[in-house]
Parts: sequence; C-alpha cells; structure tokens
Amino acid sequence: MTIIEDARAGRITDDMMLVSKEEGLPAGKIAEGIGSGKVIITKNRLHKGIKPIGIGSGMRTKVNANIGTSGDHQSIEEEIEKLKVATGAGTDAIMDLSTGGDLREIRRRILESSLIPVGTVPIYQAAVTSVERHGFIGRMKEDEIFDAIEADGELGVDFVTVHCGVTLGTLERLKKEGRILDVVSRGGAFLFEWMIYNEKENPLYERFDRLLEIAKRYDMTLSLGDGLRPGCLADATDRAQIQELIVLGELTERAWKEGVQVMIEGPGHMPINQIEMNVRIEKELCKGAPFYVLGPLVTDIAPGYDHIVSAIGGAVAGAAGADFLCYVTPAEHLRLPTIEDVREGVIAARIAAHAADIAKGIDGSMERDTQLARCRKLLDWEGQIRLSIDPGKARRMREERRPIEDEVCTMCGSLCAIKVVNKYMKT
Amino acid sequence: MTIIEDARAGRITDDMMLVSKEEGLPAGKIAEGIGSGKVIITKNRLHKGIKPIGIGSGMRTKVNANIGTSGDHQSIEEEIEKLKVATGAGTDAIMDLSTGGDLREIRRRILESSLIPVGTVPIYQAAVTSVERHGFIGRMKEDEIFDAIEADGELGVDFVTVHCGVTLGTLERLKKEGRILDVVSRGGAFLFEWMIYNEKENPLYERFDRLLEIAKRYDMTLSLGDGLRPGCLADATDRAQIQELIVLGELTERAWKEGVQVMIEGPGHMPINQIEMNVRIEKELCKGAPFYVLGPLVTDIAPGYDHIVSAIGGAVAGAAGADFLCYVTPAEHLRLPTIEDVREGVIAARIAAHAADIAKGIDGSMERDTQLARCRKLLDWEGQIRLSIDPGKARRMREERRPIEDEVCTMCGSLCAIKVVNKYMKT
Repeated sequence: MTIIEDARAGRITDDMMLVSKEEGLPAGKIAEGIGSGKVIITKNRLHKGIKPIGIGSGMRTKVNANIGTSGDHQSIEEEIEKLKVATGAGTDAIMDLSTGGDLREIRRRILESSLIPVGTVPIYQAAVTSVERHGFIGRMKEDEIFDAIEADGELGVDFVTVHCGVTLGTLERLKKEGRILDVVSRGGAFLFEWMIYNEKENPLYERFDRLLEIAKRYDMTLSLGDGLRPGCLADATDRAQIQELIVLGELTERAWKEGVQVMIEGPGHMPINQIEMNVRIEKELCKGAPFYVLGPLVTDIAPGYDHIVSAIGGAVAGAAGADFLCYVTPAEHLRLPTIEDVREGVIAARIAAHAADIAKGIDGSMERDTQLARCRKLLDWEGQIRLSIDPGKARRMREERRPIEDEVCTMCGSLCAIKVVNKYMKT
Repeated sequence: MTIIEDARAGRITDDMMLVSKEEGLPAGKIAEGIGSGKVIITKNRLHKGIKPIGIGSGMRTKVNANIGTSGDHQSIEEEIEKLKVATGAGTDAIMDLSTGGDLREIRRRILESSLIPVGTVPIYQAAVTSVERHGFIGRMKEDEIFDAIEADGELGVDFVTVHCGVTLGTLERLKKEGRILDVVSRGGAFLFEWMIYNEKENPLYERFDRLLEIAKRYDMTLSLGDGLRPGCLADATDRAQIQELIVLGELTERAWKEGVQVMIEGPGHMPINQIEMNVRIEKELCKGAPFYVLGPLVTDIAPGYDHIVSAIGGAVAGAAGADFLCYVTPAEHLRLPTIEDVREGVIAARIAAHAADIAKGIDGSMERDTQLARCRKLLDWEGQIRLSIDPGKARRMREERRPIEDEVCTMCGSLCAIKVVNKYMKT
C-alpha cells in the first residue's frame, strides 16, 4: 500500500499523525487531502528517521534547499556541511543535485545525514553515467534512466524530479515559440539532447507506467519537472510552458490512479504580475496537485541578489497558493553556492514562505510576528532577538553598534518613538 | 510661480524637459501629470545642480534612501559617505533624518554634496532644539516647528515630511483601536507627546496654511507623513491608519489649490495580501497623489533581513501602483545603518522598484532583463556582469569560484543546460 492508498481507504498512518500534529490540523483532514492528491507527504517507505512533512493545500508553505556537487567543484564534506547549515536555518526539505564525483556515495551520505526529506533528479546520474560510458548524453540508454530512478528509490530518496512533460509535442511548440533562452532546466536539456539525437520520444513520458511502478514500489513522490520553464522574463508563460503543463496535468491523473503521489514544478523567471495567473492555471490544469516553484525570479538583472529576487516571487506565488518554494541562493547564475550562500538562500525563502502563510490565512501563522511586536513595545530586546528568524544575526548586528541606553537602539537613541509614546500609552 | 502653477498654465519648464527625457515620455504628459497632482518633481527652487526626478503615475518607480546621525552615533563624514554609496548604488533620492550632532551643518553638507533630491523631517530639528532649550519635547514652541521647516526651505531641501494627519481626532481613533504598537513613527511620536502634554491640536494640521505658505515660497514638496502607520502586521489597515489617510486626502486638495506639490506616505508593516488594497485606497482618498511607501514589511520576524522583507512588500506595492519606495536596510529595528547596510538597502529597493516597473508595464523597463538574458544564451559572461544591478558583486562571486571552462560556471560545469542546448538551437 502507498500512502495515497492508505488515505483513500481511510487509514490514518503514523506519518499522517505527525503531519497533523505539526500543522495543527485534524488527521482526517490530512488523509482527505492526500486521498484527493491536494496534499502529499514526501517519504520513501525505506527512509527511516526523518521528519515527514506535508505539502499542499491547507499546509504551511514549505521550503526546499538544493545542494550537491558539480563537475567543477566536488567536496562531499562541503555538501554535508551545507545540509547541516540548511537544516539549521530551517529548510523543510533538501535536494541533492550532485553531478560531480562519486554520486552514489554522496547520495548515501546525504540520506544518512539528513533529518528531513531528500529529493533528487535521477536523470543527472543517468547523464553522468552516459558521458562516462558512452562519451555523450545522446547515447544514454533508456534503462540507464530507469536504473538511476530505481537506484535512488532503493537508497531511500523521498521525491524525484522527472521531466516527463518534455515531449516531442512540447518541443515542437518550443520551436514555434522562438524563445530567447530555449531550455534552462538541466534535466530538460539532457532529455532535449537525447530526443533530438535519437529522434525518439522522451522515455519518461512514453514509458510513464514503468516510472509509476518504480515510484509505487518505494512510495516515492514524483515531482513532475518543468523542463521547459522560462529562463528569462521575456519567455514567461509562453505556449511551450503551458503545453508542458497540460501534459503534466494528464500524467498527474495517471499517477493518482496508480496510487502515486505527485507535485508539479513551476517557473522560473516571470514578471510579478504573471505569478498569480501561473499558480491558478497550475491548480486548474493539474486538478489541485501541489505546486513546487523555483523562484519565481521577478527580474533577470540581479545576479548576486537572486535570493532577494526569488523571495519576492516566492512570497507572491505562495500567497497565491503555491505550496512549496525551492530556494534560490545569491550564487544563482554565477557559481555553485558556498555554505554561506546556502544559509542566505534558506533564510530568504523562509521569509517568503512565512509571509505567504500569513496571506494564505494559515492558522497561527502570525502569532510569532505579534509576539515579537509585543516585545518591541516593551523594548524587550532579548525577546525580539529570541523570536527572530536568525537570532544570531540580529544579536550580532545590535551588538556591533551598542546604544548608550540599553532600552533603545542606535537608530534613534533616546528619541525612540516607542519609548516616547510608552510614557503615555502603557502596554 | 510653483511648478504646479507652471504646469497648469501649460508652461514646460527645464525640469519637466529633463524628466520627460529621463522617462521617455512627452513633456506635455509630464506637465499634465504635475498639473493634476498625480506627478511631482521634488525640487526646491533654491536647490541648484541636482538631477530632478519625476514621481507618480506613469513614471518609473523611484527609490529613496534614509541616512543621518542619531544621538547615539554622530559622524558627518560617515553620513556623507553613505550619501555617496547610496547614490552610487542607484538611489533616486535621499532623506537626511539626522537627530544627533550639529543638524544644520550636517544638512548643509548633505545638500552641498548631493546630486539627487534631498528630503528631511523638520520636526526632528524642532524636537532636538526643544530638548536642548526646554529639556522636553512637550515644551516645543509652535514657532520652533515652523522655523525648522523654513530653515530647511532656505537651505534648499526638496521635500519635507510633515505629519499633519496626527490630529486630536485621529488620536482618539487610535485609543479606541487598541493597537499593539501605538505609534512607531518618530515624527508622529513627537507630535503625539506634544499634543497630549499641551492638550492642543497638532500645529501642522491647525496651521496648515502657514505650512503651505512656506512650502510655496521654496516650491518644496510636502510629503504628508503617516504618523500613525502600523508598526506590526497585527496593527495593519486599522481605523486609526485609515482615519489619518482621510485627513491627508483633505489636506492634499488644499495644498493643490495653493499650488503646492504633495505626496502621501504609506505603511509600514502589513500582510502581503493587504498591500494592493492599501495602494488603491490611497489613490482613491488622496485623488491620485503619488504614494510613497516605507516598506511595506510583510513579516515582523526578520530583523537583520528587513531589506528582503521590504523588497517583497515594495515590489508588490509598486506593482499595485505605489510610486516611490523608501528603502529599508538590514539594520532596521536593530541599529543605525552602517555604510554597507545602506548599500544593501538601496540594491534591494531597486530590485523591488524594477520588478514593479515591469509589472506596471513601464515602457522599456524589461529591456535590460532581455539583454542580459541574451548574454546568458550566448554564454557571454562579461555582458551578463556589465548588465547586472551590481556588476562588482556579480564579478566577485563568479571569480571566487572559477569554472574549469570559461564559457560556463561552477554550478553545472560542462553539463550547463544552455551549452548543451546551444548545440541544437542556435541563437
């Protein structure tokens, strides 16, 4: 039985109970959400010892952090440190996107070290293997793709990105569209090359049933990837993107029939005024499946600050109903992120998710804000720091410019508005 | 003649011509906007040698950076350096909010050094003078308030924040509301204390005509301050805030009758889903007067990251029609900003303003994004860096982790999606 089958049969599992407690919602409501496909719990049945998380309608907006090596920079220890830093900064899930070094060993180490769900993009493994064995991604064997997925399932990976919507049909639409940045998804690009070189349909689409079998065996969630996501604002919400989304909607219903959980990956780069529409069209075409957005990035001109650009887009997307925000670090478009980039990325995405939860009306989501505001009124600095999203940074910044009087800060000194008013308006 | 009178008489001034060129709009359209009050050009008639900027409907969204000393931290040289850094980072205007040291000298130095419009909050000067002379803000003389405004006009200050809407009537509404953080505006707090201590109406409201005379003499823009802006999410969009806005709307029409330019200051702290409503209600109640927002901050829990929190709110506000974004630095709620805090704050606000302009459909606003995207397609790194909002940072980040092949970056190395796809889709 998969969790979706349990939910449909009205069985409340331990994981549903844990998510119910975490979200402050009745377990029956969690089960109902899972049964309908609108909520997922990303957890491989072989993966023990992680904290399960609920993603989807009615749940708190979750955050994912991407880590992993590349061919140009390979250090398992550094990636393990990123996992710890990202978890410490409050990410809800992690994706290992390694493409350099011993990928199996890195994955094993990350799964063994992680306290939170782990996702992967198995086509990376297949592509790296193909380059090693055949010198070229185009010569990748179909079995190598499915073997990579199976291998991740066996290791305990909780969710896998699979770019099933990059089909001959969607590529045709891409060509007719005439984009600036045709394909910016790494997995999408690998499949694109394979399909053009072999003049064949995407195996992840054509043999979707085989994919479902593997996913079902491990109760792995499919994260249906947006291989044709726009890579710049000018390409946003074009026919190629929406064509792929239509295909993903069809595959979502097929997965649900087989008892496999699904989420849908979304853009990408887009103007702020297109975000709500994108969330709504996903919810319609994919029948309420959870929406996992990468960004969106609301401008292309800020490399070095894309965590801020993405926090803007993520907050707006979340407020409009997106369920899961993939962080973007300041290193995006420039380099493999450092440990500090990872930390900055997680905090920015958590700010966006939290702001979104308040807008969504998630019960209790504004409580900490109000507690912190009460500490401000009381000029209780320890309370303000304790309730901060990053207490260490808040304390450090205050300490670096100590005020003359402890009850205020150096911004206004004794002319602090709150202090002035407190003489007349007692708390 | 003031600029608003020139515009009404159909006279195109040099400043209108400069703004017309800057915005890529016909000068007649600028004049029409100024005549109707929907556009302002903040420039004191005595202030020579600055680049005039247009703020309001149809204009590019502008950014302001607050600098200035406090009683706890006073260094003229540091503030002059902040002015330079903020200008270099691309702020459109600056406000000197000094409350410590020799305020006249600081202001003079800032006005003399600035290439962009300068705003102030003259009540700070009046309050500091009152504390020095009478030991207490409550004993501030009405003349001291107007003298401070006049003094700023004489020095060439381009726009002044005046909290005319903090009236006995709005304070009554504040008391009935029962807020968590009653008054967080510094100027609002000073007037609050003065009014309670003296049991008298706010002179900036009661003697608004005297204020208009001064403003008219120097053609200073009035930035009608929101002394009762919410200081936390829980206080957002309450009756006190909207009551003040109603008063500001009435005063706007009085100012326009006298040929004085006006903008309206707005919140503050508020949930993301209240921002559009706040922009729209301002535009209605104040008959289209430009809206100058401080934030909005979409969560209270992120001291140390309030530049990000504010970039989220500012982008959403701008997209909804706000015209002028006051930056918020990472130091907000913690300390007087450092030079680096100022730089970070300006960049974050500029990202928000730029994202907003794209959403607003400002002509040509997406051009640089598309140019940068084309450089990405060409793997032209020099072009990407040159077009970045902060080329120095983009270059530094890339250099810190050099790729093995120059045409890619360390994120994906040779597996770069763009490189893979370019073999098949030529640009």
